[in-house]
Amino acid sequence: MVNLNDIKAAAVRLKPIIVRTPLISSPALNEIAGGTVLLKAENLQRIGSFKIRGAYNLLSQLTPEQAKRGVIAFSSGNHAQAVAAAGTMLGIETTIVMPEDAPRIKIENTRTLGGITVLYDRYTGDRETIAREMAAERGCEVVPSYDHEHIIAGQGTTGLEIVDQCAEAGVVPDQVLINCSGGGLTAGCAVAIKGQLPGVTIHPVEPEQYDDTRRSLISGKREHVDVSAKSICDALQVATPGKITFSINKELLGDGLVVSDDEVRDAIRFAFAQLKLVVEPGGAASLAAVLAGKVDTRDKVTVAVLSGGNIDAEMFAAIQTGQD
Amino acid sequence: MVNLNDIKAAAVRLKPIIVRTPLISSPALNEIAGGTVLLKAENLQRIGSFKIRGAYNLLSQLTPEQAKRGVIAFSSGNHAQAVAAAGTMLGIETTIVMPEDAPRIKIENTRTLGGITVLYDRYTGDRETIAREMAAERGCEVVPSYDHEHIIAGQGTTGLEIVDQCAEAGVVPDQVLINCSGGGLTAGCAVAIKGQLPGVTIHPVEPEQYDDTRRSLISGKREHVDVSAKSICDALQVATPGKITFSINKELLGDGLVVSDDEVRDAIRFAFAQLKLVVEPGGAASLAAVLAGKVDTRDKVTVAVLSGGNIDAEMFAAIQTGQD
Repeated sequence: MVNLNDIKAAAVRLKPIIVRTPLISSPALNEIAGGTVLLKAENLQRIGSFKIRGAYNLLSQLTPEQAKRGVIAFSSGNHAQAVAAAGTMLGIETTIVMPEDAPRIKIENTRTLGGITVLYDRYTGDRETIAREMAAERGCEVVPSYDHEHIIAGQGTTGLEIVDQCAEAGVVPDQVLINCSGGGLTAGCAVAIKGQLPGVTIHPVEPEQYDDTRRSLISGKREHVDVSAKSICDALQVATPGKITFSINKELLGDGLVVSDDEVRDAIRFAFAQLKLVVEPGGAASLAAVLAGKVDTRDKVTVAVLSGGNIDAEMFAAIQTGQD
Repeated sequence: MVNLNDIKAAAVRLKPIIVRTPLISSPALNEIAGGTVLLKAENLQRIGSFKIRGAYNLLSQLTPEQAKRGVIAFSSGNHAQAVAAAGTMLGIETTIVMPEDAPRIKIENTRTLGGITVLYDRYTGDRETIAREMAAERGCEVVPSYDHEHIIAGQGTTGLEIVDQCAEAGVVPDQVLINCSGGGLTAGCAVAIKGQLPGVTIHPVEPEQYDDTRRSLISGKREHVDVSAKSICDALQVATPGKITFSINKELLGDGLVVSDDEVRDAIRFAFAQLKLVVEPGGAASLAAVLAGKVDTRDKVTVAVLSGGNIDAEMFAAIQTGQD
């Protein structure tokens, strides 16, 4: 399990390498919400998403022997870049198994950051199987993208910053909305935030086609969704919540929220026109939930985590000009 | 003249309505610069630029009689929107003289924010003459876009925040780069920063076609440039520095820097891809100067002000996809 002290220890480890991303306020957004909305801008994080927090926290705790053998990860994008970057910083060889239809910018960046990429077809292959077979052959560690204590603790440092930055701004959050895929960021933030402010409600936000955490919270057990469904949110597509993440999340989360692809596009356009921020689809789900009124924000203090900003220029241009 | 106390008084006046925009750091940018670069993100300011600071500071100090008669401003861009918004907040009627071929979105935004727009033909009329004639008829105040003590003091609050935020980050800036048009933001920030940290060098940054401040700093008197020149930086096109602004700037500024349109486009693309920020051309000049090596950043602490983010979606999309 992961506790508040694990996350505080991760924060010490991460301090020299991460950006303490700003908690951004926008009068235009507050007006729409009828309350205070604060945006934790992890799209401004090193390498454009929160993922460096967990990846570095795990890689920096490998034994010298493990580090020498290198590591393998499987990821559609942001985790891939984060593992590659953390590996380069720590002198650890990284091999990343990625779907061949992942955003081009994410594949290119993973290589530029020093990762060795292995591509597979997401509709016929299973990335986890491929990665685990390679790891068994090489006798090396797999760096999971969410279901590991060190990953969860690393992502949870985002939650520590939210609590500190709300205090600095003189507000107490009523609710925090977190984009949710496997649940690592959500679980880490839930521990960090509810460990200090037990009255805060944490809402995971998912694409409506990939609402496995929402369903699992209702039934109390890990539900599966159909992974053949298309979603604009490439970063938020998993079949089922992680074992460790869900064991935390089922105790700490409020209701799961869902957003449609069109609501996400609207949020990306709003972020461009009104906030002057570049947010990727999976990073905009929580903002979409606020803008689409999926949660009551009136007279409340709501924090929404913008978890990433890695989006291809062509896709961003098409969304802004109404061609997507 | 404007002194540090005027700016501190403006900061008190502005506190309830402006955003304390973040001072953003980026490991990717630091690596390119070979030093520490901090970005004062005024593109994240209310209405997308620093202009609300000066406009509100002036309008909030009108006498009740002046406020009752309303105000007139002339501007095709960010100042127009700022005056309209400040007027609406303070219950003051605002009339903005704008060229009829100004981007429709800027005219619409000015109206949406509560301004009454008067359009003129820029080839046959002169907006300043039109505005001054209307003001004389109505007996009301004109709100200049830079050459006024209250405007300069308002914009200078950006500089106060830079000093405070550098101290919070535990760094002392060596140099501050400020996008310069009429010189209001530059003059206000120079007073705020050098009044507290006399050792800092302040560099104004201009488009190479509109380097009136750079030339004036060299000759020691207000030089004029040809206003028929084209530049991508629509917000940075003036013929000559302001009288008041230049009387301050000639005492406080270091060398003027210039950037080309292509260097500005590169900076807008870098801001999108690496920083996840939306910056308009005139707002990106200081970043362009850093990226193009127009100033020595090695082992130094450099602050660059991103002064605005109001750019049409079509233009932004064209720049990102290499069609502009």
